[in-house]
Amino acid sequence: MEFTLNQIATILQGEVRGDGNQKINMLAKIQDAKQGQISFLANPKYEQYIYTTHASAIIVQKDFQPKKKIQSSLVLVEDPYSSFTVLMEEYHKMISYQKVGVEQPSFISENVVIGKDCYRGAFSYIGNQVTLGDNVKIYPQVFIGDRVTIGNDVILHPNVKIYADSKIGNQCVIHSGTVIGSDGFGFAPQEDGSYKNIPQLGNVVIEDCVTIGANTVIDCATLLGDSTIIRKGVKLDNLIQVAHNVEIGKNTVIAAQSGISGSSKVGENCMIAGQVGIAGHLVIANGTSLGAQAGISKSITEEGQRLLGYPAIDIKEYFRSYAVFKRLPDLGHRLRELEKKVAEFTGHVVETPNNGQNR
Amino acid sequence: MEFTLNQIATILQGEVRGDGNQKINMLAKIQDAKQGQISFLANPKYEQYIYTTHASAIIVQKDFQPKKKIQSSLVLVEDPYSSFTVLMEEYHKMISYQKVGVEQPSFISENVVIGKDCYRGAFSYIGNQVTLGDNVKIYPQVFIGDRVTIGNDVILHPNVKIYADSKIGNQCVIHSGTVIGSDGFGFAPQEDGSYKNIPQLGNVVIEDCVTIGANTVIDCATLLGDSTIIRKGVKLDNLIQVAHNVEIGKNTVIAAQSGISGSSKVGENCMIAGQVGIAGHLVIANGTSLGAQAGISKSITEEGQRLLGYPAIDIKEYFRSYAVFKRLPDLGHRLRELEKKVAEFTGHVVETPNNGQNR
Amino acid sequence: MEFTLNQIATILQGEVRGDGNQKINMLAKIQDAKQGQISFLANPKYEQYIYTTHASAIIVQKDFQPKKKIQSSLVLVEDPYSSFTVLMEEYHKMISYQKVGVEQPSFISENVVIGKDCYRGAFSYIGNQVTLGDNVKIYPQVFIGDRVTIGNDVILHPNVKIYADSKIGNQCVIHSGTVIGSDGFGFAPQEDGSYKNIPQLGNVVIEDCVTIGANTVIDCATLLGDSTIIRKGVKLDNLIQVAHNVEIGKNTVIAAQSGISGSSKVGENCMIAGQVGIAGHLVIANGTSLGAQAGISKSITEEGQRLLGYPAIDIKEYFRSYAVFKRLPDLGHRLRELEKKVAEFTGHVVETPNNGQNR
Repeated sequence: MEFTLNQIATILQGEVRGDGNQKINMLAKIQDAKQGQISFLANPKYEQYIYTTHASAIIVQKDFQPKKKIQSSLVLVEDPYSSFTVLMEEYHKMISYQKVGVEQPSFISENVVIGKDCYRGAFSYIGNQVTLGDNVKIYPQVFIGDRVTIGNDVILHPNVKIYADSKIGNQCVIHSGTVIGSDGFGFAPQEDGSYKNIPQLGNVVIEDCVTIGANTVIDCATLLGDSTIIRKGVKLDNLIQVAHNVEIGKNTVIAAQSGISGSSKVGENCMIAGQVGIAGHLVIANGTSLGAQAGISKSITEEGQRLLGYPAIDIKEYFRSYAVFKRLPDLGHRLRELEKKVAEFTGHVVETPNNGQNR
Repeated sequence: MEFTLNQIATILQGEVRGDGNQKINMLAKIQDAKQGQISFLANPKYEQYIYTTHASAIIVQKDFQPKKKIQSSLVLVEDPYSSFTVLMEEYHKMISYQKVGVEQPSFISENVVIGKDCYRGAFSYIGNQVTLGDNVKIYPQVFIGDRVTIGNDVILHPNVKIYADSKIGNQCVIHSGTVIGSDGFGFAPQEDGSYKNIPQLGNVVIEDCVTIGANTVIDCATLLGDSTIIRKGVKLDNLIQVAHNVEIGKNTVIAAQSGISGSSKVGENCMIAGQVGIAGHLVIANGTSLGAQAGISKSITEEGQRLLGYPAIDIKEYFRSYAVFKRLPDLGHRLRELEKKVAEFTGHVVETPNNGQNR
Repeated sequence: MEFTLNQIATILQGEVRGDGNQKINMLAKIQDAKQGQISFLANPKYEQYIYTTHASAIIVQKDFQPKKKIQSSLVLVEDPYSSFTVLMEEYHKMISYQKVGVEQPSFISENVVIGKDCYRGAFSYIGNQVTLGDNVKIYPQVFIGDRVTIGNDVILHPNVKIYADSKIGNQCVIHSGTVIGSDGFGFAPQEDGSYKNIPQLGNVVIEDCVTIGANTVIDCATLLGDSTIIRKGVKLDNLIQVAHNVEIGKNTVIAAQSGISGSSKVGENCMIAGQVGIAGHLVIANGTSLGAQAGISKSITEEGQRLLGYPAIDIKEYFRSYAVFKRLPDLGHRLRELEKKVAEFTGHVVETPNNGQNR
């Protein structure tokens, strides 16, 4: 990239303090920035660096009042972090070589419909009757099964695997190694103790603006006509398990290694931390926040709760109980002492064969 | 699919009430079914729908007594859900285009033996001295290492990876992204604090009728001649970790994201829920049931137990203890009050520097 | 392999007791060994087998004093297990067919630099401006993005995926399905409750002698110029999550299914068991040992601690508290009894609406 500072200020709808004609060719953190680079100051913790940085320019909040002299030029904006993000996106677009066309060898079946400006990488596989929208980027070694439909502006990173009949909306991003539409985990117990696989005939539907990390798995629904559904704007991290017939509500965010069991319905705008487990056939209310490693065994009906533990309870209550848990041996000891005292007093001997000492 | 209702009744060994000559072309849930479709009623919760459904036919239990008039024809059977499953399987067979033959480009090494009716998808890789039985379906981008043997009627979904020397039985299904035979996690500590990789020379043996989900990993055994063994009829879900030298007993079922550490031996007919962890070198008795997120740090010798928590204890005891855990702050408070009262009574001052308030 | 026992003794710097000219062609466990095979005795538990084994030779500690007659020849060494490991490595080298050259079809972009004795398997993909050192083994279906650099003596097992700009040192091994450099999980909340993807512009740096298991994910850093860093000698197991901007210190070992959240810095020589979770923006001191399923929510500043639980506490304290947790219902009951007794004594009625019975 190479812009003048004035051009950057125009993009950011900001105001320049300093030489607007100087050239900027790179983004950097304020601690590391060098001549020719632009950085930003959002967190006051980093203010010290603005007086020593070698950055040619710094994006700052328009009301920022420097305490010392600053060598760099400034760009005054409403929200420095958001503005820097905009520059990161511009940069990202420039370095992501926008591949178009087909690398060979690749495999394409019959009756495939492909929109404009698509890319199909080497060793990618497209099944029968697949439909791809415009500007779909299929990286190398991607597998797309029969009758899959994919919207516009979708990126499938190397080696994403999409089973037959899945539907993916617009502006979705799916990272490497993720599997969409594998069989739900359903087995019918037989009299001899063995299990028979139940055919999994449903599909997966992923709505618009969904981002999915690497090596995540989303199983298809069991019955024909049913779908596992990921609603608009959902963000899933890496190594997540989404079982058959699950529905995840709009704009819900789930961190790595969490798992949702079959037929559970997670509400909208939930925040689910890492390594959380949700049992099957539950309903999780909108706006629920689940702490790391929480285990959910009952439906959550009240909106906006913050929960932790297994089974999960209110996060503050969990921490209060856990504070006592840490000194349980002391509590046990004090209880025993008290029993002795009371026994002496009442003249009885306390019978506690199972006290802390011998158990 | 298109059958007459009489043909379906014959397949299900059931009895028709209504027009046996009508055409059925699809399966559907009772709530959603349309003209020309067949559904089933197994769970009484759904009985209401049988009086309003547009399904052409419904599979019901032979003793079913309708409370109102039903528009649909009926098929009377012993077990409606099992019967519907049979139809799902028939349907599944029909829609799963039974691919046979080889897509190009694909890669095959020397001295490979391949049975009848096999399929090898594009970009699949077969190593030296591999043996495939009859009716093996190798989907695109599958990797099969040297000297692997695979039985009859096996399905390897896209991009399954099987390391050298693995052995897979008959009627196994392995889903996308799963890795069989990667190195066990074994390192010899060196004097300088670093670790040296210990060569992993064993293999993985998977017996008949095993189903494995997506992105699961099964490591090979450490020593030459040893195997990590998955016994007949085992069902593994997605994202499971099976370490080196583990053995999983017949018909054991393990849900997603659980992990079994090196050299542990899980019994037969166990039910292991999601996100469970089992430490290394343990023995888990037959018929053990482990609740979600349980952590097993000791061998389980008594059969048929149900366990939860970390370290796992009897599930009922866990819930009883957890019920008290949730009101531990109250218990701590009551204990302190009691100490005060007893102290007043006995004329002593209670010394509790570590009470709930200040710790 | 086929060596004389004298040749083996020379490799191991050991001393032969018996016929040094006999031929040895295989390694085996002492319980299973047959004629022509060599085994070892390290763990006294297995001493019984040395008197009955059919092994032609056994590696023993040089001070070993047999209690009965031994049929096998002996090789006396300082450390029998290490010596056996050396033989395993020799064997491993022999059976790992050291592939060199290129299998077709494979894909290679422009401006790629490749060292000596490399192997590129079928369906592997190499992006623009990639640099590979000497003796790099790229197994089939591996993806290597643009500008990646890889050192000498690296093994990338089938279907490893390495995103653009990653840097990998010398003597690294990465197992199947692992993803290096996928986007960090970063989103900017918008006013309408949705999230906007923040471009992830940093990379991943993996230093020398790092081993990574199967289906693990390491995300790239967020800002340009930043890196997620895996230091020299780190050993990662399968299905691990390493988030953006994490740093893992030298010689740290992490077991399967553990996860480290964004920007956390794990020290050197740590031992992290399976299914552990570490929250974001933490610092973990050198030499920390974390038990299975531990959850870390605060930085650990003191070196060499052993922790367990969530939030993790000293492992011994955790077990002491857990011992009391298991009999909490009994404690609750005893507290209630004591309250009654004291109430009788003092003439007051105890008010405990929330006792164990009714809550």
